Amino acid sequence: METIRLAVIPGDGIGHEVVPGALKILERLAELHGGLKFEFEHYDYGCDYYLEHGEMMPEDGLEKLKESDAVFLGAVGDVNKVPDHISLWGLLIKIRREFQQEINVRPAKVFDGVRSPLGSPKDFDLVVVRENSEGEYSSVGGRMFHEEHEIAIQSSVFSKRATSQAMEYAFNLAGSRSGMVTSATKSNGIYHAMPFWDDVFKEVSMEYPEVSTTSEHIDALSASFVTRPERYDVVVASNLFGDILSDIGAGIMGSIGIAPSANLNINGKYPSMFEPVHGSAPDIVGRGLANPVGQIWTAKMLLDHFGYEDLGGRLLKAIEDTLREGIMTPDIGGNSSTEEVTASILERL
Amino acid sequence: METIRLAVIPGDGIGHEVVPGALKILERLAELHGGLKFEFEHYDYGCDYYLEHGEMMPEDGLEKLKESDAVFLGAVGDVNKVPDHISLWGLLIKIRREFQQEINVRPAKVFDGVRSPLGSPKDFDLVVVRENSEGEYSSVGGRMFHEEHEIAIQSSVFSKRATSQAMEYAFNLAGSRSGMVTSATKSNGIYHAMPFWDDVFKEVSMEYPEVSTTSEHIDALSASFVTRPERYDVVVASNLFGDILSDIGAGIMGSIGIAPSANLNINGKYPSMFEPVHGSAPDIVGRGLANPVGQIWTAKMLLDHFGYEDLGGRLLKAIEDTLREGIMTPDIGGNSSTEEVTASILERL
Ligand SMILES: CC(C)[C@H](C(=O)O)[C@@H](O)C(=O)O
Ligand SMILES: CC(C)[C@H](C(=O)O)[C@@H](O)C(=O)O
Repeated sequence: METIRLAVIPGDGIGHEVVPGALKILERLAELHGGLKFEFEHYDYGCDYYLEHGEMMPEDGLEKLKESDAVFLGAVGDVNKVPDHISLWGLLIKIRREFQQEINVRPAKVFDGVRSPLGSPKDFDLVVVRENSEGEYSSVGGRMFHEEHEIAIQSSVFSKRATSQAMEYAFNLAGSRSGMVTSATKSNGIYHAMPFWDDVFKEVSMEYPEVSTTSEHIDALSASFVTRPERYDVVVASNLFGDILSDIGAGIMGSIGIAPSANLNINGKYPSMFEPVHGSAPDIVGRGLANPVGQIWTAKMLLDHFGYEDLGGRLLKAIEDTLREGIMTPDIGGNSSTEEVTASILERL
Repeated sequence: METIRLAVIPGDGIGHEVVPGALKILERLAELHGGLKFEFEHYDYGCDYYLEHGEMMPEDGLEKLKESDAVFLGAVGDVNKVPDHISLWGLLIKIRREFQQEINVRPAKVFDGVRSPLGSPKDFDLVVVRENSEGEYSSVGGRMFHEEHEIAIQSSVFSKRATSQAMEYAFNLAGSRSGMVTSATKSNGIYHAMPFWDDVFKEVSMEYPEVSTTSEHIDALSASFVTRPERYDVVVASNLFGDILSDIGAGIMGSIGIAPSANLNINGKYPSMFEPVHGSAPDIVGRGLANPVGQIWTAKMLLDHFGYEDLGGRLLKAIEDTLREGIMTPDIGGNSSTEEVTASILERL
């Protein structure tokens, strides 16, 4: 019997509405498996915690989370309670950094029956591999001068180590898929960092002669995700570009509420973290409107991560079948509630 | 009789295929008007110029361009000849900076008859106002250390002056439209610069109590351009975010080949520059595939800029009628050539 200890952080807003269902599903799958057990430790870190304690998590928060095998997170942020840069850097981004979750994997694919904004349903199936620890998300910089003279400086920092690591991950992944990697660049505008990014990409690609490559500027690539997503397989991107591309990937699937992500620690020193791509959506809290699919698909990524691909596959099939039958939330064209969608997936396992 | 002197830079690739037709159209409209005349001065600046002279334009290039009333540009860049950061910073970005073209205006709207990737044709009509002189496009930074230790640092620089100027432009524009401005931010991830951006936005918005505002993170906003573009009117964005959003705007219109832009000098000291959003597309050169609409719509923006809104309106109508009749290039679902589309627009004036 294997026991997986999960640190569960529903976080803010709809995080509280989508996490419990996903946990039920994980428990049910473990039961069906027989040789697997989950142990959940719940943490109330988030904006309400901040309002009470003046910080997003206690000082020993990371120590506690570190005892788990993985973190399972809902969503963080509520600008009506805490400014976004405080809440995110105090919790989500902090965990990514401190736990060296340097790779963020974000798939996007077509689901039968889901209303996509794209007209003719194109059969795309891509994965964004996002560098998750540095780049444009940096605390280096600051503000200076007053009033009309004020300036803000923000330094992006790119290291060869983390850049090539993300690219290697992408190339290896491509090897097990269609053998194609697209690099998101902007070397025509971002004068130092992106030519560096291109150079590293060229160098890493030499080690994978069997994988074909293209480089596209983030502006054109973003548009191309909309006009011809079926052209892409594995897309490797910086922290910011990966953030943007994975949301567009979610958008063309039909809703940002569907997309999952895995923040991977690949040196084995810390837990990885699994969270949907969507945010806390304070505007729809409490109305049963939250799409649970992003969180549930995230649970599938967690199962795959721990080697339970059979369970992960079963879960994905249950999601697909549920959506194909039209059981879905309004954001993707249905009229079922969060609970109804979750219950339907649970039944099909 | 007013004479408008245009400095014409076809630049690279399909720039040479779409600029001549747009100039014919401008001449024809001036003729029809009677009281207007264009004088064109052609410049061969671009990547071929670089291969011959080792720079994208001669030392006195800007001096020469400065004698014109406006610059009319095709596209710059051909990575097979010159690295992108060299070609762009040596020509396009140089002109934007040196001529203090601090505002970039980029409309996107639905055209009847054009194949859009979006299924149900939504009736969107939006304008991206892009800060065009600073932000993420900065030459501040560099590379350090060798081989596996190399790092690249890239500093974005945001000034109160240019930031608030772009926002004021957006608010004024919104006043003459639907009265709504959306700010593209990323204050949850970009720790210093984007909270600054938000603060300036809040401050500027106070001066325009009649305009309603929202702020959205660039990742969610990018997805939202795809899932519900009809929600937006004027969107104000940093240099990079404006670049990305305007390409997505072009994408949802059907093709990046349609979209126009105006790089405005608003202090009256230097010429403004008009260029389509698309690039030089070396892969389709010489095949009659280049969509001329972006360049021609750009000519409409030029006419509006010089106060000839009547001619601009007439030109837009000719574009709309041509597209509605299915006379268009393959990128948007037609089978006409660059020349056929141009000729059809010309006939309808
Ligand atoms: C060519 C490139 C430098 C340019 C930019 O990023 O500004 C282009 O993409 C644009 O949008 O005008
Ligand atoms: C909330 C925010 C900081 C975060 C990010 O930008 O990384 C989110 O958008 C995501 O994609 O996980």
